[in-house]
Amino acid sequence: MIKSTNMIKRIKTRKLHIGDVPIGGDSPISVQSMTWTKTTDIPGTIAQIRLLHFSGADIVRVAVPDMPSAVALKQICSQTSMPIVADIHFNYRLALEVAPHVQAVRFNPGNIGDKNRIKLIIDRCKEFKIPVRVGVNCGSLESKFEDKYGQTAKGMIQSALYNIKYLEDLDFRDIKVSLKASDVQRTVEAYRGLRPLVDYAFHIGVTEAGTRFHSTVKSSIALGSLLLDGIGDTMRVSMTGELEEEIKVAKAILKDSGIVKDGVNIISCPTCGRLEADLVSAVAQVEHATKDIKTPLNISVMGCVVNALGEAKSADVAIAYGKGSGLIIKKGEIVAKLPTKELLPRLLVEIDKLKDDNYDTA
Amino acid sequence: MIKSTNMIKRIKTRKLHIGDVPIGGDSPISVQSMTWTKTTDIPGTIAQIRLLHFSGADIVRVAVPDMPSAVALKQICSQTSMPIVADIHFNYRLALEVAPHVQAVRFNPGNIGDKNRIKLIIDRCKEFKIPVRVGVNCGSLESKFEDKYGQTAKGMIQSALYNIKYLEDLDFRDIKVSLKASDVQRTVEAYRGLRPLVDYAFHIGVTEAGTRFHSTVKSSIALGSLLLDGIGDTMRVSMTGELEEEIKVAKAILKDSGIVKDGVNIISCPTCGRLEADLVSAVAQVEHATKDIKTPLNISVMGCVVNALGEAKSADVAIAYGKGSGLIIKKGEIVAKLPTKELLPRLLVEIDKLKDDNYDTA
Repeated sequence: MIKSTNMIKRIKTRKLHIGDVPIGGDSPISVQSMTWTKTTDIPGTIAQIRLLHFSGADIVRVAVPDMPSAVALKQICSQTSMPIVADIHFNYRLALEVAPHVQAVRFNPGNIGDKNRIKLIIDRCKEFKIPVRVGVNCGSLESKFEDKYGQTAKGMIQSALYNIKYLEDLDFRDIKVSLKASDVQRTVEAYRGLRPLVDYAFHIGVTEAGTRFHSTVKSSIALGSLLLDGIGDTMRVSMTGELEEEIKVAKAILKDSGIVKDGVNIISCPTCGRLEADLVSAVAQVEHATKDIKTPLNISVMGCVVNALGEAKSADVAIAYGKGSGLIIKKGEIVAKLPTKELLPRLLVEIDKLKDDNYDTA
Repeated sequence: MIKSTNMIKRIKTRKLHIGDVPIGGDSPISVQSMTWTKTTDIPGTIAQIRLLHFSGADIVRVAVPDMPSAVALKQICSQTSMPIVADIHFNYRLALEVAPHVQAVRFNPGNIGDKNRIKLIIDRCKEFKIPVRVGVNCGSLESKFEDKYGQTAKGMIQSALYNIKYLEDLDFRDIKVSLKASDVQRTVEAYRGLRPLVDYAFHIGVTEAGTRFHSTVKSSIALGSLLLDGIGDTMRVSMTGELEEEIKVAKAILKDSGIVKDGVNIISCPTCGRLEADLVSAVAQVEHATKDIKTPLNISVMGCVVNALGEAKSADVAIAYGKGSGLIIKKGEIVAKLPTKELLPRLLVEIDKLKDDNYDTA
């Protein structure tokens, strides 16, 4: 008995669909992003949607700031099979215009205001069977909540409940909710705080997380913490100007938090004074050789014996470097003792064999 | 009232010192790493210690796999003022040899075994007033725990308690504890599980976390989650073959989780179809211009009005781009409305003024 049990007890939420992508319930956690072209630039926007598709995104959001954008979005939707979410603020007519063409709408009833207009949008969503994301953002709270609570997690939770109530009063429950702040603590606090109060699926993300490096760290901390709590049904990593990287980081968060088991996981020691081989180069070669493998494989590449044999037990295949020679270990069994320079080629052969086996992806 | 209260309630631990670096209690969370030169390569090891010092590390660990390394470490310690932790396995004589020269020892009593030998080490640590890290690693659990619990968080916790007891039986409590696994879930589960059972400071880290990208994500998730829980007194990001990057990521985790307030925090939107400016380039310029500022400053650079005014309220200084022009906002007050091309130069002027102010670093 080597592997640990999964500590994550995912919180069950009400299921909805954005196009053919299920969200909530027991659905896989989906990954989404947003185009940053002008939406009226139809070929440019379609190119970004395609880039996101090939990067592995499941859903794409597109801004609809005005009527020309709404008209353009209609054309864009006719030219892509990706599920599209229209991002709408203030103007209810934009929602009415795009609802027949998109797979979801993000709007906050509170920033539409008038109840009749909200009812018009919801009737339209019901007619075309599309869900709504209530997207609360700490930077644009309704003033009554900001005045009372400040730009806090509590303010975001109160805003979400208020916006959700608008929809529930219209007997509409095809809802997901986001509560984004530009820092980790308010974001985590808000999602944790709202989770026990509603059963809607959560779209999780840190907003305006900054550039590549800090967004990677902020999003990993916040989304990782929430996912470990079992919170989160769909996610977005927000990064200034980087579409492919957003998806790469989102998928890494899912994999490195242990939620998704696909592909290769390399366990390699940080290198230290006990090192018996050029580990950095060996790991780089293994990483390169295995980057396209979809089979879930744990590969351990360790530079000395202190932890190598132990780590090898949890690995599908492992190298344990020793003085002048080392071991190839498969599922805890030593299968070869070889001179150092023969270890890496042999590991790659063993990986090749393993990836062709029909692995259980459970 | 704009800023949120800090959600982190740091768990108070028993304080110790590694050289002049306090750990636990109310001490700042320190950052450490480990050299990966052969320890017998004295100039090489000193060069890595120096690199870590200039990267911002507080403490450096050095492997002592054999007696020549122990002898070399003595010389290394005489040539550096960095606090040095000797990493020792199996051989008690190595600990006796280095104890007079280093600022801490990491060893697991269970892998020394013989009680008399453990007592010799502890007597030596008492004599030279140096603490011990009990460093449990999921890949090298004592077989009695691995047989019973597998390589699980529970196995790590039991191993830690068993190793701690050896030291407490010798009336030694100058202890910190680590519980590292090569994956996020077991790591987080182990530290959370042990936290209520002892009052010792925790050294937190994911072991063998892999190469730069995945280590950044894994360490951010695991260490970030723990830090948000108030767990962790000193930390290491483990990364195959990257010393400066380890420290950079560790410091980013502390800053982006909101624990450390130093330096500039840039809030920039992910760009979308509402964008009114070349935000990517603007943010890159702000990031470059502010990279050496130590004053805690929140700078917001937003591409449209939807969230810009809200975010600007929590920022020390902000740009909100609009159509053809935009606003400069200081602490929520609009101080200038300027044509787009004048916004960035003005922001940099305002940042310059702010960084010279005597900011409260609380």
